Amino acid sequence: MSVKFAVLGHGVVGSGVVELFYKNKKSIEKRAGTEMDIKYILDLRDFPDFPYQDKFTKDFNDILNDDEITSVAECMGGVEPAFTFVKACLDKGKSVSTSNKELVAEKGDILLAAAKAHGCNFFFEASVGGAIPIIRPLHRCLAANDINKVAGILNGTTNFILTKMYNDNMTFSDALKMAQELGYAEKDPTADVEGYDACRKICIISSLVYGRHVYPKSVFTKGISEIDLADVAAADILGNAIKLVASVRRLDDGRILPAVMPMLVPHDNIMSGVNDVFNAVLVYGDGIDQAMFYGRGAGKLPTASAVLGDVIETAKSHSTVASQSWEPSQDSSFIAPVDELKARWYFRVPADCCDIPEGAYTDDNGSSFITDHTLTWNDAAQKAAAMKAYAYLPVME
Amino acid sequence: MSVKFAVLGHGVVGSGVVELFYKNKKSIEKRAGTEMDIKYILDLRDFPDFPYQDKFTKDFNDILNDDEITSVAECMGGVEPAFTFVKACLDKGKSVSTSNKELVAEKGDILLAAAKAHGCNFFFEASVGGAIPIIRPLHRCLAANDINKVAGILNGTTNFILTKMYNDNMTFSDALKMAQELGYAEKDPTADVEGYDACRKICIISSLVYGRHVYPKSVFTKGISEIDLADVAAADILGNAIKLVASVRRLDDGRILPAVMPMLVPHDNIMSGVNDVFNAVLVYGDGIDQAMFYGRGAGKLPTASAVLGDVIETAKSHSTVASQSWEPSQDSSFIAPVDELKARWYFRVPADCCDIPEGAYTDDNGSSFITDHTLTWNDAAQKAAAMKAYAYLPVME
Repeated sequence: MSVKFAVLGHGVVGSGVVELFYKNKKSIEKRAGTEMDIKYILDLRDFPDFPYQDKFTKDFNDILNDDEITSVAECMGGVEPAFTFVKACLDKGKSVSTSNKELVAEKGDILLAAAKAHGCNFFFEASVGGAIPIIRPLHRCLAANDINKVAGILNGTTNFILTKMYNDNMTFSDALKMAQELGYAEKDPTADVEGYDACRKICIISSLVYGRHVYPKSVFTKGISEIDLADVAAADILGNAIKLVASVRRLDDGRILPAVMPMLVPHDNIMSGVNDVFNAVLVYGDGIDQAMFYGRGAGKLPTASAVLGDVIETAKSHSTVASQSWEPSQDSSFIAPVDELKARWYFRVPADCCDIPEGAYTDDNGSSFITDHTLTWNDAAQKAAAMKAYAYLPVME
Repeated sequence: MSVKFAVLGHGVVGSGVVELFYKNKKSIEKRAGTEMDIKYILDLRDFPDFPYQDKFTKDFNDILNDDEITSVAECMGGVEPAFTFVKACLDKGKSVSTSNKELVAEKGDILLAAAKAHGCNFFFEASVGGAIPIIRPLHRCLAANDINKVAGILNGTTNFILTKMYNDNMTFSDALKMAQELGYAEKDPTADVEGYDACRKICIISSLVYGRHVYPKSVFTKGISEIDLADVAAADILGNAIKLVASVRRLDDGRILPAVMPMLVPHDNIMSGVNDVFNAVLVYGDGIDQAMFYGRGAGKLPTASAVLGDVIETAKSHSTVASQSWEPSQDSSFIAPVDELKARWYFRVPADCCDIPEGAYTDDNGSSFITDHTLTWNDAAQKAAAMKAYAYLPVME
């Protein structure tokens, strides 16, 4: 038997899937335990210089109506037409593996239900953390754990910018410009810089770990555009790196608190050493204590590696994987507001301010310190106003 | 349907499996998609204060001959009687999940063949890196990659000792004593300190990644007992941490080079920040570039988490997982000798030695430097002899 699959979209990720598959076809087939081949590549554009001309089609129905196609790799991005195509495939019992975080974050519950109803799988390892295996480890390898917190650096662009600010003393805008020149940031960098991209990814992790669909609109999201070099430097002297942290924790009453925000990560936390465009996900569970998964969060072949890993799984087994699923959510009452986040806080205030604690670090940019007790978001905001703070940020536990 | 499993051995890991299973039974069953329970716990000792008295047995045949038992967790350690018991279970079609690295490193090929012949699985996630998901990610999530190198910190005891030497300026013997007092090292610490434990683990990884059984006796293994505080300090000043690195790489001619030895890990490599008893595995592949897996490498609940993750997999599916397998090896001609390891080298030599390059660091303990070109093991040994070196160590790429 030979498994035939289709690739939807021949952009960066889709072309990477084709390239990596043919490069390692032999070993992939050995690991899959079956012969495999790509039968279709869907794209509206022409790629005259590309070797596999006979596989290109502009008509999605060629794929949908071909019963030989049992598995589909969706690499188009965006909610539509990806959603319509993916839903149609699942409804026909064709498993789908996607790199499309927007699709999973907005429509994951519907697509998982469709897969279950038709005995196939909707896989999305590539949608979070690029090359990093995180989805499958979360629901399979760590299945014996009660997971109480996940915290990640889930956006490579912002991590690159923060690393440049930290290592090379570059301002935010200079580092952003460099990221754009290197192709790490879009012309319009809003989705990365303001945290929307990281938000989609923590929505997917939250949904998987806690079992109910978490929508991006329900998640407090703050980006890094207000981070000042003075804070990067002061945080370092106080023993921390500033990172854009996407996290979710379960509160004592069972509600969950997902959020995206810049935080101080102490130098003795392994995540503080995650630099440049690399991503990492730190998982806290009652069995493992903590485990971290680290790697390239984006890029042609890293993302293709994750998509193909899923496609190989669909070739190995056709029954729906029960543990990789979550329920729809009727409302967002199970999501706690960000004010319930309790943390120690970093403040940078005028050097002549009152109430500056001992051990504060003072330079031309003011006095910086970290509270030794936890404050809620609102308490921190009040304290910041009272002290006329230049900046204040929570510290990751 | 309810899946009944047995736990062989009620020591640290076995009792952890029982504890973690009953703590999270509800969510485990949800992820497994089936009810599950422990039916037997095998141990020759009595545990009168333990709650599940009705489950204890001293007779392995109770388990072997009970057709209701489809899955077994082996937590006894050592090659015998574990091998005999595990083989008997697999021959009866009962899947086995083990934390026993000695068993897998010495008998893995035989047990994998038995599992395949009888349509069940021999799983061993817990045998490498404790809680860290690494076996399943290697053969499943990264299945699309051509993996050219794996390098890991695979022994928590030695990493604790090296961290104490680095952070607190403790000598090797003082740090070892502290590790013993904290229960991180055995009374006889040979297996940890001399690298034998890490060797077994890199054998398992090498076998899985490269497809042929690699025996511990074929792997060059050097421990950390000769590491001097002067080298830890000088390596740091030169931008590196000294770590016990277990690694395997594929050479251009297809042979592989597994080895265990202390190496300098540059500070800009994420692995240099892996401290205390934590383990980490860095995987290099043509799709992912690099990915790292980090967590607790030992301990009751962390190891139990990995064993149970495997047991849950056996409850989900009964067909043999083709990708988690390797062939027996008739000889060791596919394993290259350690002299073929090419690396840049660290040397500490008498300060009045000739040929000390510019940029060397000199203090009362001599002059330390790192070569800017690679040397084989024998070349490095010759250079060390010629310079009357106090110490020399390879640098991890």
